[in-house]
Amino acid sequence: MNGTMVIRQTGSALLDSSLEAITPLDKSVMERAQARLDNLTKPKDSLGYLEEFVKRIAGITGGTAPDISSKTVFVFAGDHGVAAEGVSAFPAEVTPQMVLNFLAGGAAINVIARHVGAAVKVIDIGVNFDFDSTPGLLKKKVIRGTGNIAKGPAMTRADALKCIETGIEIAQEFALKGALFATGEMGIANTTASSALVSALTGLAPAEVTGRGTGIDDKSYARKVGVIEEALRVNSPDVTDPVDVLAKVGGAEIGGIAGLIIGAAANKIPVVVDGFISTAGALVASKLHPEIERYLFASHSSVERGHRAALDAIGIRPFLDLNLRLGEGTGAALAMGSIEASVKLYNEMATFDSAGVTGKE
Amino acid sequence: MNGTMVIRQTGSALLDSSLEAITPLDKSVMERAQARLDNLTKPKDSLGYLEEFVKRIAGITGGTAPDISSKTVFVFAGDHGVAAEGVSAFPAEVTPQMVLNFLAGGAAINVIARHVGAAVKVIDIGVNFDFDSTPGLLKKKVIRGTGNIAKGPAMTRADALKCIETGIEIAQEFALKGALFATGEMGIANTTASSALVSALTGLAPAEVTGRGTGIDDKSYARKVGVIEEALRVNSPDVTDPVDVLAKVGGAEIGGIAGLIIGAAANKIPVVVDGFISTAGALVASKLHPEIERYLFASHSSVERGHRAALDAIGIRPFLDLNLRLGEGTGAALAMGSIEASVKLYNEMATFDSAGVTGKE
Repeated sequence: MNGTMVIRQTGSALLDSSLEAITPLDKSVMERAQARLDNLTKPKDSLGYLEEFVKRIAGITGGTAPDISSKTVFVFAGDHGVAAEGVSAFPAEVTPQMVLNFLAGGAAINVIARHVGAAVKVIDIGVNFDFDSTPGLLKKKVIRGTGNIAKGPAMTRADALKCIETGIEIAQEFALKGALFATGEMGIANTTASSALVSALTGLAPAEVTGRGTGIDDKSYARKVGVIEEALRVNSPDVTDPVDVLAKVGGAEIGGIAGLIIGAAANKIPVVVDGFISTAGALVASKLHPEIERYLFASHSSVERGHRAALDAIGIRPFLDLNLRLGEGTGAALAMGSIEASVKLYNEMATFDSAGVTGKE
Repeated sequence: MNGTMVIRQTGSALLDSSLEAITPLDKSVMERAQARLDNLTKPKDSLGYLEEFVKRIAGITGGTAPDISSKTVFVFAGDHGVAAEGVSAFPAEVTPQMVLNFLAGGAAINVIARHVGAAVKVIDIGVNFDFDSTPGLLKKKVIRGTGNIAKGPAMTRADALKCIETGIEIAQEFALKGALFATGEMGIANTTASSALVSALTGLAPAEVTGRGTGIDDKSYARKVGVIEEALRVNSPDVTDPVDVLAKVGGAEIGGIAGLIIGAAANKIPVVVDGFISTAGALVASKLHPEIERYLFASHSSVERGHRAALDAIGIRPFLDLNLRLGEGTGAALAMGSIEASVKLYNEMATFDSAGVTGKE
């Protein structure tokens, strides 16, 4: 984190103004939060990262009683032309099928969101299917799936910016008091796009940031790495320009997630980041503004190779070690529970004085 | 895990009969659970350890719809004579003060338990203080604090067995349908006792399993390691007899936790284990019966040195990485939320057929 920041002219007025609206966290609020934490009936710092969580939430949201009780998981869905290369264990038709499963409440993300008391909003930002209007579905289609990145760009720069703007607009629409956002996604073959994007933005070789997605065998894995290498060669994205990388080898849902995060930060809302694809979106956002990382809460450490590299590049650390590799926002939703606990501890615990407990000797 | 087991005659009929009642998990139920998991709308194994959690819970509780909705955190409290050696950052009077804080609902464990929907029961099993009868307090005092282990045994073998029996009786009393237990504790200087106990039962040197507890400085830490070495020398516990080790260098709350776990396993109830002291209790239980580990769910990875060694000796792995070092059951209560999510995923997710989602190609 540093106080100075370089904001490029991205070509989108909404994106530029949102980036300009992002500020460092409020230090004086965080200092007051630390003082309160140190007077609660527990040894100093003994709640570990939970203390850091609530301190940052206080610094993000301001005020004296942090509130993140209004929890929403945003599941961005998009198709990927590169699915035609046989890089996924599932066919492309599963993307719209799973969107319908989300809307019917039968997917893992629905169960976990209900468990933690979060709403689920599904965004069709790039699915190659026409959905009926349904409660819970935000119809924000920018593209009908990306192009096959092994052969050309995922989308135009204009469409990539439109995806980011869509995410920003959603963040603005849901910027209610006490908001906590979580990111999620659905898109067959989107680990391929994410690996290409993370490789470009971190400088790591494709093989170092490519995993087995939903579960491919050795042969398909070798093909997947080759496809990513080819995608980077064919498109030669400008690695100093996150929007160009998103357009060349990314995906609509990845752009939507980047936009949601930027819009959240501009509106002083903390965001819990899910697994590999969500973190790829967060990396795009983070590369556009150095303060973004302070608004982000990593959730789980995915099985997917490349996830840790993307988290490290942003500068956030996960705290759930569950070997998850499902996406949808499942890890982030689960993490929302623990992050909300940190706020309740801050607001509800007794102090040494109020409880009549003797302090440290 | 193995099918044969050697159960020593412990000297307690209740303990012996409880150990005899512990069975391996039901394999056929676990196989049916795996089949159901593989038909839910997600890539195979993509929910990682959450799948393992619910499979074990099914194998523990039997039946087709696992239920752990009746959640209770048991906080065992006891004093430690070794506090006189200056091994803790807090004075011994804090043990009863914190018990009163638990009963008033102002401690961290109260906040987290409310957050996850768990009840809190506080057990005075060894506090050097006379409590009034209060809702939520189980008055089960066996001793008024342990002896100073630097100079002699913590308690008699009879008292150690009584502590274990107390835990077993509490497990029996709360063995309701859908029960999930979590362990917690309070006892100034109980990391000293736990380190001595874990050192004896794992064969690791005291310095390898001793941490800074509630937060002591370098000088006090050196003294603490010396006190533990002295305690093991003075008492020379029989390392092949977990009850002897508990009596010589343990504590009342550690024995209560061991008993609660044994009673839970005998009654087919899963138990979530908190940090270092709770894990020391779980290690005693685990050394008394080889199947115990299958009933246990580790929660978090404590800052306390020696915690991981104790977890490894039992054979369980934590999934929350939050740098906690508070005890009370806070990490276990937080983990209850994620473990309950695994059961809801199993019971509530749609199948590929019911949701009309295409399976793996």
